Amino acid sequence: MSIRAEILGDWGTSNLRLWLRFGGAVAERRDGRGVGALAANAAQQLRDLTAAWREAYDISVIVLCGMAGARGGLHETGYVECPASAADWAGRAARTEIADTPVTIGSGLAFRDRDGRDDVMRGEETQVFGALRLHPELAIGRATMLLPGTHSKWVTLDGGRVTGLRTFITGELYALLSRSSLFATGGADESGHTDEEGFAQGMAEGRNAPGLTGSLFQARAGQLRQGRSAAWARSYLSGLLLASEVAQMQQLGMLPNQVTMIGAHALCERYRTVLASAGVATRLLDDEACTLAGLELILAHD
Amino acid sequence: MSIRAEILGDWGTSNLRLWLRFGGAVAERRDGRGVGALAANAAQQLRDLTAAWREAYDISVIVLCGMAGARGGLHETGYVECPASAADWAGRAARTEIADTPVTIGSGLAFRDRDGRDDVMRGEETQVFGALRLHPELAIGRATMLLPGTHSKWVTLDGGRVTGLRTFITGELYALLSRSSLFATGGADESGHTDEEGFAQGMAEGRNAPGLTGSLFQARAGQLRQGRSAAWARSYLSGLLLASEVAQMQQLGMLPNQVTMIGAHALCERYRTVLASAGVATRLLDDEACTLAGLELILAHD
Repeated sequence: MSIRAEILGDWGTSNLRLWLRFGGAVAERRDGRGVGALAANAAQQLRDLTAAWREAYDISVIVLCGMAGARGGLHETGYVECPASAADWAGRAARTEIADTPVTIGSGLAFRDRDGRDDVMRGEETQVFGALRLHPELAIGRATMLLPGTHSKWVTLDGGRVTGLRTFITGELYALLSRSSLFATGGADESGHTDEEGFAQGMAEGRNAPGLTGSLFQARAGQLRQGRSAAWARSYLSGLLLASEVAQMQQLGMLPNQVTMIGAHALCERYRTVLASAGVATRLLDDEACTLAGLELILAHD
Repeated sequence: MSIRAEILGDWGTSNLRLWLRFGGAVAERRDGRGVGALAANAAQQLRDLTAAWREAYDISVIVLCGMAGARGGLHETGYVECPASAADWAGRAARTEIADTPVTIGSGLAFRDRDGRDDVMRGEETQVFGALRLHPELAIGRATMLLPGTHSKWVTLDGGRVTGLRTFITGELYALLSRSSLFATGGADESGHTDEEGFAQGMAEGRNAPGLTGSLFQARAGQLRQGRSAAWARSYLSGLLLASEVAQMQQLGMLPNQVTMIGAHALCERYRTVLASAGVATRLLDDEACTLAGLELILAHD
């Protein structure tokens, strides 16, 4: 009889990461396309990507989180309403199957604030609950987590339950604006190098200006009137957007003294700079470890 | 001997409008591509578009404003520094020629505020000075003009001189965000119809929220959690962006009691709704008339 194993996966809009595990340890990793960029349908892609593993081993279950559970993903799962504990959430996973292998897909989380504003996440909650499992001190009293990305998620926790959520579309806005007419001059430098002066100027503007739309044009005016480079302008944009996000959290009365971050290292470092200038201490957790720990919660509950 | 005539033109990023005039009256209008969308070079396009007029009449001069004077346009002109009067500006037009016909291109205006923020315009200043010519009461004391568009320009005047300028990239941001992932669901409705409830909700959010990036995600959450349509989401976005612009002007202490607007009618009506809710009276001037009156100032100075 073949070796028993399970497959864990994080299937977001842009990427799919799959891990093969034996006896609780990761043995192999495989990457695929995100739900937003599929050539075939999601079930077919998952069948193809897991075919070799399913032939070689006895796969008891495939556990997925993220946009796999969105409409148009592999199989739609609902949202668990906040406040939500890890058990509330893990117990609400949805079940389907591909090629006779059971597939369990974690739910998202939904939050409605006192003013009736709705917010949602799919995928980040897995990292949040995984972080709580790896760092139980985060479940004592209140904590704030920041998961930067295309859509930056600020998550508030109280006693280990998710009690609040606010999404800032900072990353998407950066991507959209980088291709806009504001950056049309001298646009050759796409190196991603940070111009420290531009970043600092954007950060100062984002902290002090009353809003974004009246500050963004400076990216272009700086190029036209001060001989600034495209790299300066993009760094100005980055500093402006991040500082504006932090300033909004502050004005909403939601900026804590300490933030736990889960995300890509370079982006977290930029947030760290901006948060430090606002007097906020930060620590960075490993996002792969948090994702796996969260997926294990669904697995354990299954 | 053939009839003497002149050609006036407004050559922006998106469109070129040319008017043929005899004895001070417009006889014909012709439209072409903007500087940002040229197939051939600018000089060639202008030669082609004016060929019939140049053969039929004795064209004394072609007078242009807008991006025709930008780098990469027809012929680069400088910026006149604010504060600037109509005479300061009209006297700084640049001269070139196409096919032996003299061409005069109006300058832009540049402004640096007390905090060292730079801002510029090219084209709108022609409408501003044209409006002053058509409505001399705007030159008495202080006045504020708003020229909405891809880049919305707020212009302050004192005694008929332009003393301030602030650009909001509201229109460009609307265009970019309309194509973003926030509006990916139910995206079929591109009718441009305004959902009044969505517009009002966006307007309320833009007036009260501390910034944009934390409010934009509601466009998506409203679709996912409240069954809102794509038309609702786009109208929410429109209301949010316009109200945010007006709120920024208010926070900057730059929002007056009355604003004179020059721009596309439908867009000005949306601004009027938002400005009225902030207690600001508005009046709308005809933009073609203002442009022609401004171009005549350059012509008269030539």
